[in-house]
Amino acid sequence: MIKLTKYPSPDQWEELLARPYSDNAPLMASVKEIIAAVQAKGDTALRHYTAQFDGIELADFQVGRAELEQAGNLLTDELKAAIQQAKQNIEAFHRSQHKSEDAVETMPGVLCWRENRAINKVGLYIPGGTAPLFSTVLMLAIPAALAGCAEIILCSPCNAKGTIHPAILYCAQLAGVHKVYKIGGAQAIAAMAYGTQTVPAVYKIFGPGNQYVTAAKQLVQVAGIAIDMPAGPSEVCVLADAAANPAYVAADLLAQAEHGPDSQVVLVTTSESFVQSCLEEIEKQVIHLTRKDIALRALSNSRVILVKTMLEAVQITDQYAAEHLILHCENADEIAVQIKNAGSVFIGPYSPESIGDYASGTNHTLPTNGYARAYSGVSTDSFVKKITYQKLTKDGLNNIAKTVMVMAEEEGLQAHAAAVKIRLGNQ
Amino acid sequence: MIKLTKYPSPDQWEELLARPYSDNAPLMASVKEIIAAVQAKGDTALRHYTAQFDGIELADFQVGRAELEQAGNLLTDELKAAIQQAKQNIEAFHRSQHKSEDAVETMPGVLCWRENRAINKVGLYIPGGTAPLFSTVLMLAIPAALAGCAEIILCSPCNAKGTIHPAILYCAQLAGVHKVYKIGGAQAIAAMAYGTQTVPAVYKIFGPGNQYVTAAKQLVQVAGIAIDMPAGPSEVCVLADAAANPAYVAADLLAQAEHGPDSQVVLVTTSESFVQSCLEEIEKQVIHLTRKDIALRALSNSRVILVKTMLEAVQITDQYAAEHLILHCENADEIAVQIKNAGSVFIGPYSPESIGDYASGTNHTLPTNGYARAYSGVSTDSFVKKITYQKLTKDGLNNIAKTVMVMAEEEGLQAHAAAVKIRLGNQ
Repeated sequence: MIKLTKYPSPDQWEELLARPYSDNAPLMASVKEIIAAVQAKGDTALRHYTAQFDGIELADFQVGRAELEQAGNLLTDELKAAIQQAKQNIEAFHRSQHKSEDAVETMPGVLCWRENRAINKVGLYIPGGTAPLFSTVLMLAIPAALAGCAEIILCSPCNAKGTIHPAILYCAQLAGVHKVYKIGGAQAIAAMAYGTQTVPAVYKIFGPGNQYVTAAKQLVQVAGIAIDMPAGPSEVCVLADAAANPAYVAADLLAQAEHGPDSQVVLVTTSESFVQSCLEEIEKQVIHLTRKDIALRALSNSRVILVKTMLEAVQITDQYAAEHLILHCENADEIAVQIKNAGSVFIGPYSPESIGDYASGTNHTLPTNGYARAYSGVSTDSFVKKITYQKLTKDGLNNIAKTVMVMAEEEGLQAHAAAVKIRLGNQ
Repeated sequence: MIKLTKYPSPDQWEELLARPYSDNAPLMASVKEIIAAVQAKGDTALRHYTAQFDGIELADFQVGRAELEQAGNLLTDELKAAIQQAKQNIEAFHRSQHKSEDAVETMPGVLCWRENRAINKVGLYIPGGTAPLFSTVLMLAIPAALAGCAEIILCSPCNAKGTIHPAILYCAQLAGVHKVYKIGGAQAIAAMAYGTQTVPAVYKIFGPGNQYVTAAKQLVQVAGIAIDMPAGPSEVCVLADAAANPAYVAADLLAQAEHGPDSQVVLVTTSESFVQSCLEEIEKQVIHLTRKDIALRALSNSRVILVKTMLEAVQITDQYAAEHLILHCENADEIAVQIKNAGSVFIGPYSPESIGDYASGTNHTLPTNGYARAYSGVSTDSFVKKITYQKLTKDGLNNIAKTVMVMAEEEGLQAHAAAVKIRLGNQ
């Protein structure tokens, strides 16, 4: 069960907040081999690995137009309505991120600005497995479409019958994916990175996956293909005080714990009596879960940390840099302002993390494993580059000329100075 | 000399636009060894490598306060004035990038927004060598300071006398760097990634460097430390028509070519007579350059591509995805809008690339090697994370509840649905 630590000193925090470590070095060699095979043999290699790992011989990887269009017929109206509502909210929030910027006249006659340009070709990876992660299709394809990416492709492994879950296909066509391929694992990442006869190469690859997928993304990134962010197991940190509702907090902790046995849950609280009531609630609620065994294994990796003050609670929270941070405390709005490191923050008793996983509108592709110290979650920004522009008038060049020439000469770059000087002489 | 290709067909473009390839795989093993040594032995390893590579035994790596403060006394007033002007312009443009965003009510009672938070600890690397790249200090430290990074450190190798060029130190203290260390190469990257007794570990590492530095950045990135972007040799693409001034274009091409023998220069033009006059200008101007030999070697890697139409010229330019793109043509403003892939764009006859290298206000840390297809240059954004927040009212949760519960159940995540349901039951 979850481990309780009372009033640790700051020098103990690092150890307390350590993530369950998993080393993917041992599988790097086989992932390198898969990538090399896809680079060398293209579709032939994809067929080989799909037979080996997904247990099916595929003649054609691409999901046909009819299969895509009819996927919705296999879903209940209730589910389709939910997906459409989620899409609407995700769109509203991600559209607000796509802004043009004003030009700045940094000195008279020197105009500078930035413009958004879509990354032309992007690839989305959606894992297979027991739970069909159709929500992730929305989270990746909606901002890609809003950004205006010209080619949005999606790879996901099919089952042994050669099909992909219809909710994934429905979300893909609803959210604007152009092509869907039945390819999974490291071979899918390699196909999107380098292209094959069937799969076009893309410039940036997004999406979650198992250790093989993660390793493949790391390897293609070193080769120059952009990726969304480094990956790690999902996690939540809850910051609670005596005013928090123990049943709500327990439910939030369990929602995270059910993700997988390697998920991590951290509860930081200022109230000892709250710890007791929350642990009782966890025991009461966990027995009703269909994924009880997974949740219990995740809880055994997890921590309750009792601290003296809210200030200390915030400091521990920042050191942990959680993917998801839930604030169950008085003055949660004021605490929210103080948070320095987190992927996504959920404020107050009516903002459970699961609303962000599906439908509040924020993205659920977030930095795990402490990466929130340096990385943001996926947003519309993730699908664009910002190109800088500058345009100088003749006077503008005159105004800036001496500054540039003096600096260039000092750096020993005489031709840089000359490119300014020749324009002055010619006026 | 630069190679001319007339009217290539689109299937020839890829080969024509290939970058000079350099494989850093052979030096990965020695870079791994350096990183492992710094991780294991800290300052002792830094001393060892500094003696070995920089030829000096250092007792203390940190540049003292007096040395930093007095660096300005070793520079001319003219240079200091130029640096201050550049700082002012860079600040004006990068300050405009640091914006707060409005919250979005995605559905009634569901409020979502993003907030900028500085990356607390950042490390800047400035190479040594013949040219002291003090301009890069400004380009990295100014946005870091504007973003509000709490700890900005800088590593740069010292010379055999144990000193760093005073212009680098002057820019560092002027732009808000907190600590400067005399450490170079892969060992500097390892020190900033993992920390030593003297050097604090940082969350993100920025800056250019040689192949060892680049390899070290790639390796620490795989280990989870963020970096600015992948690196490659500098390059320029000039798009010119018959209206362009051949002397200006030649000067711009040479300014790029003098960077290094591995720099690349591409001229795309619709005018055959322009090619002739521009090549003549290059020959005329190159003989006056102090870095003539370097420029000539870079030109031998370079290309002039003659095309039939401006449309084709833009398409080639986008396929190349240049770090720097200069538009020397009629209707340059209209062409600028059509550009999809570039790091920074220079519009019209009075906007030579060298103004962007130093002082227009845009950042000169830009994606090379075609990375502009997926990456932006450094900006204030590079020094912050954007945390998403959401806050729901009781009614907001009621409004979104069914959507979340239906989707969570379909994904098999029952505890996610339960975290919503428990709040509804309790109202």
